[in-house]
Amino acid sequence: MNLNTVDPYGPEAFPGHRVRLGAEDPLPLDCGVSLSPFSVAYQTYGRLNADRDNAVLVCHALTGDQFAGESHPLTGKTGWWEFLIGPGRPLDTNRYFVICPNILGGCMGTTGPREVNPATGRRWGLDFPVITIADMVRAQVRLIDHLGIDRLFMVLGGSMGGMQVLEWAAGYPERVFAAVPIATAAHHSAQNIAFHEVGRQAILADPDWRGGDYESLGVVPHRGLAVARMAAHITYLSEIALTRKFGRRLQDRQNVTFGFDADFQVESYLRHQGSTFVDRFDANSYLFITRAMDYFDLAGRHGGVLADAFRDTPVRFCVISFSSDWLYPTVENRRIVHALNAAAANVSFAEIDSDKGHDAFLLDEPQFHRVLAGFIEGSAERLDFLDTGR
Amino acid sequence: MNLNTVDPYGPEAFPGHRVRLGAEDPLPLDCGVSLSPFSVAYQTYGRLNADRDNAVLVCHALTGDQFAGESHPLTGKTGWWEFLIGPGRPLDTNRYFVICPNILGGCMGTTGPREVNPATGRRWGLDFPVITIADMVRAQVRLIDHLGIDRLFMVLGGSMGGMQVLEWAAGYPERVFAAVPIATAAHHSAQNIAFHEVGRQAILADPDWRGGDYESLGVVPHRGLAVARMAAHITYLSEIALTRKFGRRLQDRQNVTFGFDADFQVESYLRHQGSTFVDRFDANSYLFITRAMDYFDLAGRHGGVLADAFRDTPVRFCVISFSSDWLYPTVENRRIVHALNAAAANVSFAEIDSDKGHDAFLLDEPQFHRVLAGFIEGSAERLDFLDTGR
Repeated sequence: MNLNTVDPYGPEAFPGHRVRLGAEDPLPLDCGVSLSPFSVAYQTYGRLNADRDNAVLVCHALTGDQFAGESHPLTGKTGWWEFLIGPGRPLDTNRYFVICPNILGGCMGTTGPREVNPATGRRWGLDFPVITIADMVRAQVRLIDHLGIDRLFMVLGGSMGGMQVLEWAAGYPERVFAAVPIATAAHHSAQNIAFHEVGRQAILADPDWRGGDYESLGVVPHRGLAVARMAAHITYLSEIALTRKFGRRLQDRQNVTFGFDADFQVESYLRHQGSTFVDRFDANSYLFITRAMDYFDLAGRHGGVLADAFRDTPVRFCVISFSSDWLYPTVENRRIVHALNAAAANVSFAEIDSDKGHDAFLLDEPQFHRVLAGFIEGSAERLDFLDTGR
Repeated sequence: MNLNTVDPYGPEAFPGHRVRLGAEDPLPLDCGVSLSPFSVAYQTYGRLNADRDNAVLVCHALTGDQFAGESHPLTGKTGWWEFLIGPGRPLDTNRYFVICPNILGGCMGTTGPREVNPATGRRWGLDFPVITIADMVRAQVRLIDHLGIDRLFMVLGGSMGGMQVLEWAAGYPERVFAAVPIATAAHHSAQNIAFHEVGRQAILADPDWRGGDYESLGVVPHRGLAVARMAAHITYLSEIALTRKFGRRLQDRQNVTFGFDADFQVESYLRHQGSTFVDRFDANSYLFITRAMDYFDLAGRHGGVLADAFRDTPVRFCVISFSSDWLYPTVENRRIVHALNAAAANVSFAEIDSDKGHDAFLLDEPQFHRVLAGFIEGSAERLDFLDTGR
């Protein structure tokens, strides 16, 4: 069977790379199931050098994807880290080979609930195995193997991307020279889980979700997914940012209408966030990825001692947080730093003063970029590959 | 037509008082519509003295009701301020006549979208006029008139109850001796509006909402209302409180199930909050009351100067906030204090050190009760009615 003929999200649907892996060598997942084969869609920027030691892995967040350094083929929007990736930018594509894969469970070409289950010829839907952050990283390791890269120069990512960075450093320390977890946490807190559960219940409450089989039935649970996105979106912004951006300003009107239209700009903005999200994201992917984040607890897998995840690590770390991030606040990022200190790791830490909330890691924050550029430069000097002209 | 025969929420449905007002004298609303007649359901505790000057008005919050000082007839739960109301308690029913009305727009007997529109003989539903906090207070003023009370000894309330307190003090200063706004704000912030909008969109997304006509069609938008409640409930607790109460503890299991059941206690708790709420609350009331809160902007009605709402006020104020409340944080309560200072009002302010979040005003917080009892006692001495033995 040619899977592509039944799969509108196959290679022909998106530009860029897509590789099918694990046909001979199944990918074991934490839940006990194995995937064979599985696909990974990814984008690259720059060129891999002859020694294959200039590769940088960029890990995306919950609703991100592989289009980090270029305009998005579906939305037309600027790449989500385009200001960081390119010639002369901190992730300088004249020097580095930047790889950004779509995560396992995603909906942009990597195997996830929207893809076809090779065993049945039907979409996975809710039959897709519940994955973990470690599973996402396992799939990325296979991609890196496939690309013939022994060790990554650097792994970076914000939010859920930062969780993948921590998994890389904890699970594959010999394959990572430097790691930059940004605006993240080593476990999901009760409040983090609570917000995700609201989003999942909003999706599950939508009758068009149809037990996860919506796509084969020709419907989309767009209302539930939009509500999930709206609730989550509030957590991405600080209270100050919302006040500055919108305050109590009205949307294209002089007075309130005494009705349930979007009188306020903030309502209009949230509705827009919800409705545009539905056009580019899959509801089942949202369920599976939020679940993976909720399950994330790095210390829990090491007897409750986070430092034990990093004992004798050779990895150089730079942990970055943002002062107004209340989703993964500085205190959670500091917890990672303390654990790394306790493990005698090489770690630097910066809290960036920003009032933009969690989303700051996706925004053009000059101080964030300076810190990041400095760490990248310093790491490159330490690795020495730039001086040797390779 | 006997309205009660078509109204399961009429006097026979709930114990306590219910008065029909405004038959001759319509209640004008901010939206331009008038209500005539309208009902107010209320409970009282203690006795009104001969001089009718020992009355205390307790204003309830978004999902509260008139059963403040006794077990709830539907849920069987303890009254929401029962620890404050009773013989020997801060609101001592041996001294004070405590009145707690269900708000306009509510669903426990006061006129709201679930009630029958006398003009049509059908439930109001979405035809109910969009009300404001000032409208709620106008209806309460009519109740106080009906009870023959010229001046209230005190008006108290937390959260949206505190907004009503501010409206009473601003609009009827000669009829309030002392006012206690608790854990509240003089306007709704962009973040406050955003969370409410998520809740409303969750309700509107439920196909069983049926444009607001669900009850006449025999259905209930229970899924949407439950999601709205879950999202709101997170904002009522602090991150610390959620961590202490639940952390990452699992619900009746040793390991995660790699599925979408409520693996975590916090998920189970939230689902319970959602499902029990649906049994006691009306979805349309939720829409109308959250809208009233979003519209609340006391300074906005006074040229942007909050102090101008209280110029030359004779009212004695005690403003109380809780240190871990992030819904109506101390900074918003302080804004009220600063405005009262600027208006040369008699005001005391206390920030209660508590890690329980916004919900602290509903909880047995000893320091909160001490502050409140002290202010009540001091106000009573000043008013002097206790010394004269009336």
